[in-house]
Amino acid sequence: MTETLSPELEAVVARAAAAAPAFAATRPEDRARAIVAVADALEANREDLVAIAMRETGLTEVRLTGEVTRTAVQLRLFADTLVDGDYLDARIDPADSDFALGVRPDIRRTHLPLGPVINFSASNFPFAFSVMGGDSAAVLAAGCPLIVKAHSGHPELSDATAAVATAALAGAGMPEGTFQLIHGREAGVQVLKDARIKAGAFTGSIAVGRLLADIAASRPAPIPFFGELGSVNPVFVTGAAIDERAAEIADGFLTSVSGSAGQLCTKPGFVFAPAGSALPDAIRAAAGDFPEHRLLDPRIARSFEERRSAILGSAGVTPVVAGGIRFDEAGQGWATPTVVAVPLDGFRASAAALSEEAFGPLSIVVEVPAGTDLASLMPEFFEGNLTGTLHLSAEEATGETANADELRALVAALSQQVGRVLFNGWSTGVAVTPAQQHGGPWPATTNDASTSVGTAAISRFMRPVAYQNAPAAFLPEALRDDNPAGVPQAIAPAGESRSWGARWR
Amino acid sequence: MTETLSPELEAVVARAAAAAPAFAATRPEDRARAIVAVADALEANREDLVAIAMRETGLTEVRLTGEVTRTAVQLRLFADTLVDGDYLDARIDPADSDFALGVRPDIRRTHLPLGPVINFSASNFPFAFSVMGGDSAAVLAAGCPLIVKAHSGHPELSDATAAVATAALAGAGMPEGTFQLIHGREAGVQVLKDARIKAGAFTGSIAVGRLLADIAASRPAPIPFFGELGSVNPVFVTGAAIDERAAEIADGFLTSVSGSAGQLCTKPGFVFAPAGSALPDAIRAAAGDFPEHRLLDPRIARSFEERRSAILGSAGVTPVVAGGIRFDEAGQGWATPTVVAVPLDGFRASAAALSEEAFGPLSIVVEVPAGTDLASLMPEFFEGNLTGTLHLSAEEATGETANADELRALVAALSQQVGRVLFNGWSTGVAVTPAQQHGGPWPATTNDASTSVGTAAISRFMRPVAYQNAPAAFLPEALRDDNPAGVPQAIAPAGESRSWGARWR
Repeated sequence: MTETLSPELEAVVARAAAAAPAFAATRPEDRARAIVAVADALEANREDLVAIAMRETGLTEVRLTGEVTRTAVQLRLFADTLVDGDYLDARIDPADSDFALGVRPDIRRTHLPLGPVINFSASNFPFAFSVMGGDSAAVLAAGCPLIVKAHSGHPELSDATAAVATAALAGAGMPEGTFQLIHGREAGVQVLKDARIKAGAFTGSIAVGRLLADIAASRPAPIPFFGELGSVNPVFVTGAAIDERAAEIADGFLTSVSGSAGQLCTKPGFVFAPAGSALPDAIRAAAGDFPEHRLLDPRIARSFEERRSAILGSAGVTPVVAGGIRFDEAGQGWATPTVVAVPLDGFRASAAALSEEAFGPLSIVVEVPAGTDLASLMPEFFEGNLTGTLHLSAEEATGETANADELRALVAALSQQVGRVLFNGWSTGVAVTPAQQHGGPWPATTNDASTSVGTAAISRFMRPVAYQNAPAAFLPEALRDDNPAGVPQAIAPAGESRSWGARWR
Repeated sequence: MTETLSPELEAVVARAAAAAPAFAATRPEDRARAIVAVADALEANREDLVAIAMRETGLTEVRLTGEVTRTAVQLRLFADTLVDGDYLDARIDPADSDFALGVRPDIRRTHLPLGPVINFSASNFPFAFSVMGGDSAAVLAAGCPLIVKAHSGHPELSDATAAVATAALAGAGMPEGTFQLIHGREAGVQVLKDARIKAGAFTGSIAVGRLLADIAASRPAPIPFFGELGSVNPVFVTGAAIDERAAEIADGFLTSVSGSAGQLCTKPGFVFAPAGSALPDAIRAAAGDFPEHRLLDPRIARSFEERRSAILGSAGVTPVVAGGIRFDEAGQGWATPTVVAVPLDGFRASAAALSEEAFGPLSIVVEVPAGTDLASLMPEFFEGNLTGTLHLSAEEATGETANADELRALVAALSQQVGRVLFNGWSTGVAVTPAQQHGGPWPATTNDASTSVGTAAISRFMRPVAYQNAPAAFLPEALRDDNPAGVPQAIAPAGESRSWGARWR
């Protein structure tokens, strides 16, 4: 049974539940208009919002200004997506008197919104993965009422963003209760347990993500829970790539490790390079240019300081770029990037201590002896990850070098354990595009069939429903023969079932 | 940590894990050929298999013979599906120097098989939801090694089917370990807990499904678990429909309730009809023709007898068709259909006792006073269901009668709580077609974003992976520009991001 909510939370959940049928019934163009209104309003209020965010998070003005643009762009992408209707996966099987198993009825299938969703927002993207971030955009695009649990790291920004969004949604005529903000982890847990809530989304740590996923799974009626958790994003660099462009790789690496003070779920945490290569020297040479950057909050800073000391103190670990962290009078930590190197056998000996995520600007170069089976290192050292990267030389990229099979095996191993495989690039800076995949096997996410970036993210908040022999007057628009919105419809013609499989005999 | 398996189970799981990369790498046409070979082999061995099935399950020769055809047809449908490649949802975002957020890399996304899967088979469909049933077809089509846990209700048939399938798969060149059969619930649980297993499928009771879903969710690395559990499949019949064709509705209803002795997850368990209508008399008139049918096993028969007595003994319940159950000397139960009626207020008073599934040939007519808000009955009495049905008159089907809004509200309420909404038909006899949806909110399934019938079922056993700036030599075939297999590719042209959302201002 649902536990009793406080009067305030009861009102929030009741409003969301009451809004569900009306919001689900909004026309796609009207929902798109409302989502674009939110995007425009965020950009119109950019200066005020960024000023609050700088104070609450320590992230730079450039980064935060760009993040508002990113957030607006992804809202606009979802507005187009929800109208274009690919994600509905509309299927029509017309009645078929010649069906292989007897008369086939007319069956038509589309996707409907799940109902109210709670989204637990993240600290490290105060716009793009917070109140009106990617998960929220997907929930609203799907037609589900949204309750956001604000992150404690930026409460004032959360309230300010919510005020902007609430006004924009109301101005666009969306029902009251379409979007609401709550504060406090216990409040979030209580809402997640409520029977009226139909899904949860989360971006944050493995520990908290697991706690919430377990709550969602153990409810009397379990619900889907989409958590994006930890990732260490292994990188493999071939000797030929280093011979070709060591300085370029080193510079890209340090930029990726140090951006946003390394507080990104896609930060490259490990770089596997041939023992004795020029990469460490190239990294050392590139390290002069990185200014110190404040970490998000004192707790994260202290935790980074501890993790950094433990790594530096592990047997076999040598500093490549010493970096460091200092604390100001307010207790805030300011860091410059740290890079260490460790031989493969040393890494193997200390894998338990070293292979865990270090949240902050630190990365580990693992020096691999010639002849090592690179593909086997993935399952040996890592669970699921958001990304895996391979740096090849131009010649290796042709797939025709002597080591091509070894590289193909490595790509297969990466594909098995990550959501995105990159070549000759860096995993930070996740592009907001239709084909993006931001996910991966546990513990990268709680649900590796889904993504939290890219247009497929909308599918997390919908479920399929089929209609059998439905009169046109009772069909969802997307399934009608006249298809007024022109959404894609996959039609399985009558008569074809008799030949199913025949071409494979 | 994974618990230690017995040597036999360890060998099974190790074989499946070893087969995973090789099976995933098979060409789609070769996998299709293997699946069609299984279908052909089942049909070639139909007589022998049906003879065993009749003895073990008590189902009729006609039903079982048809079920083999259904099983073969659905294997062949998946063979075509896996080659056609729609389910890969292949997406290509070419590099875009004019992207709204700066240069967009080339990103391409497809779906890869999850790895080894365990499928717990069902008792009531000894072919279509058992060893080589729909879930198994989807697992093999996806390219995942399959371990089937045999149902204890038909062990000999399971072994015989497995022998046929194993020979066919080996003959088609599939790797050893592609398919294996195990017996025993504890063995199934042990395999489900093993870290090498990447998903589970199940068809059966709510109690066992919940147990297994909880195990899958609480593993150190949780995995998706697709359980198809209980359903009572509410039906609503309007007065106008009864006036139009009471005898036809009554006959269809009794056929649906009594087929396979009512032991179907889509059996209509409740029929809501206007109080005082001609439906009960019509049902009584149609009831003469139904012979007794053996229930699957003595345990199910005793449980049905108990449930039937409890329902007949509830306050306000009156028999429409008395039906009955008798036990033979072997302890097997033989039943004829039972139909009872109860007024809405009586149903409300005894809802806890009456609204649970009765597995067997029994259904309840609920007599609804004029003026009742039909849509509100769904959330009042039911959780998630596989199906919900509405019988309308020809005039009501136009959507232009005085009660059209009431009917639309009822369709919306059904859509909210079921996976398939039927009009003027019966929910048993699930068509095996591309647009089919066999699922629904908890407790109809453990995961209502999925289906266990229809081509979308394959997606349960795959996960998305994106490739960023990958050289063609390292891309999966489905993502290459030359697209050798001609699978559908959704391409997002460069330059379009600048106008995202613009049409909604």
